[in-house]
Amino acid sequence: MKSVAYQGEEGAFSHEAALRIAGPGGSCVPCPDFDSLFGLAESDGVSAAVVPVENTLVGSVVENLDRLSSSPLRAVAEELVRVEHCLIGAPGGTDEPLSVASHPVALAQCRGFLDANPRIRAVVAADTAGSVRALVEGTLNADAAIASRLAAERYGGLVLKAGIEDHPENYTRFLVLSLAPDSPPGPAKTSLTFTLPHEAGSLHGALGTLAEHGLDLSRIESRPIQGRPWEYQFHADLQESDSERLEAAVSALRARGVRVKVLGRYLSASRSTAATSG
Amino acid sequence: MKSVAYQGEEGAFSHEAALRIAGPGGSCVPCPDFDSLFGLAESDGVSAAVVPVENTLVGSVVENLDRLSSSPLRAVAEELVRVEHCLIGAPGGTDEPLSVASHPVALAQCRGFLDANPRIRAVVAADTAGSVRALVEGTLNADAAIASRLAAERYGGLVLKAGIEDHPENYTRFLVLSLAPDSPPGPAKTSLTFTLPHEAGSLHGALGTLAEHGLDLSRIESRPIQGRPWEYQFHADLQESDSERLEAAVSALRARGVRVKVLGRYLSASRSTAATSG
Repeated sequence: MKSVAYQGEEGAFSHEAALRIAGPGGSCVPCPDFDSLFGLAESDGVSAAVVPVENTLVGSVVENLDRLSSSPLRAVAEELVRVEHCLIGAPGGTDEPLSVASHPVALAQCRGFLDANPRIRAVVAADTAGSVRALVEGTLNADAAIASRLAAERYGGLVLKAGIEDHPENYTRFLVLSLAPDSPPGPAKTSLTFTLPHEAGSLHGALGTLAEHGLDLSRIESRPIQGRPWEYQFHADLQESDSERLEAAVSALRARGVRVKVLGRYLSASRSTAATSG
Repeated sequence: MKSVAYQGEEGAFSHEAALRIAGPGGSCVPCPDFDSLFGLAESDGVSAAVVPVENTLVGSVVENLDRLSSSPLRAVAEELVRVEHCLIGAPGGTDEPLSVASHPVALAQCRGFLDANPRIRAVVAADTAGSVRALVEGTLNADAAIASRLAAERYGGLVLKAGIEDHPENYTRFLVLSLAPDSPPGPAKTSLTFTLPHEAGSLHGALGTLAEHGLDLSRIESRPIQGRPWEYQFHADLQESDSERLEAAVSALRARGVRVKVLGRYLSASRSTAATSG
């Protein structure tokens, strides 16, 4: 049976990603924080773990990219979850709440709704799904919560209004991590991390090596290296390529003195979804 | 008289940066948050503003890079502040505290000290300098605070132990922002932001254009564009170059369909420090 770990409470957006990966008959394992999530997956306590690495409104979750780059886990798939925020009330409670609690990022993503409803006071809470649980249990210091539809279903909350986020183009991208990488034989996306020799033009040289091998970069981040001010570890995502090209590029980078680590090759979410439904 | 705005309370590390920019006879203006800081500087209410954009342990302050890219302000200088954390007690208080309060990032940067002193309980607070103020006023829910030496001096706290951070190579890089840019005539660093035409290989093409003009990238970040999932605005820092090269490169980028905005040219902190002391 497939078991998939995620960070957060039941009904969190991470739980939605985990449910899809676990599939029917699989199980999902909640973890209180990312350190315990990585620890559980690294000790082979679950088949896989899902971690958010990017949101289309907020940007990269750099802490998880850092954790992955120093972990034996590898990315084996990606999963996109549409983040739709709902105004959720308690059963038997008011349907015209005067206060609403949620995680600060969720509140910020619903600023338009809150501005249009000035009588509703926003209350900061530790997370989205946990606010719904507390609301239904009667222990929330607010009349309503903002969270996913899944959270409303899990805890028996009522969706008073769906889609209250400012931008409907709100997606979180998760990587599925496993100790048993399974590199796809055909075209696949790649996540990798690299550090450069300390010399002028080395970043452009490294990116040029990727380009010469037909590898296109979709995203790149500079992360600090502890104890080496103003030097960086780069996290990059490559668009789809076959594994031979990737291997040749990695060899060429290493020949240039670049320290490179491939964090995983995996089907792009659109392809993997098509494969599942086909 | 030069007036310099910063975010935070008196004694914050940002205040230290502002004091250096204001110089003797200048004044520093505290702002409660970054939105009010940018608002004040954009309305010409101060001569300049200092904002943290990068820390050598934590990484980029991406929110401030985003704010700068949509602001009429330009970077005119950079300033490096060494972040040395001190254990600070109240006058007449215990010198063997059982609890210590500070901002979560400061607590995280002193984890080694806290692990070595398990009898001291860590308490999360809103900021570093504010914890010292509350400590001296007798309203802090802890026996001690972690903050800068400057904060201890401002509020009359006692430095019980200095340099308790895990990594001495802990620097925050600030940009000095102004409505009146003053581009240095000689070699200078450049911060810029750009968005790409939506086609394969466009990131490598843009970086190649910079390289062809002899411009070296030191750092690059991918930031999401609201409403355009999986497309990015890139924030980049260029190593020192003269303005002619930069202008030629910007023209060439625009000819390729790259939307580019120069956020400022400024002397590197080592040069500007040398110039001040020389």
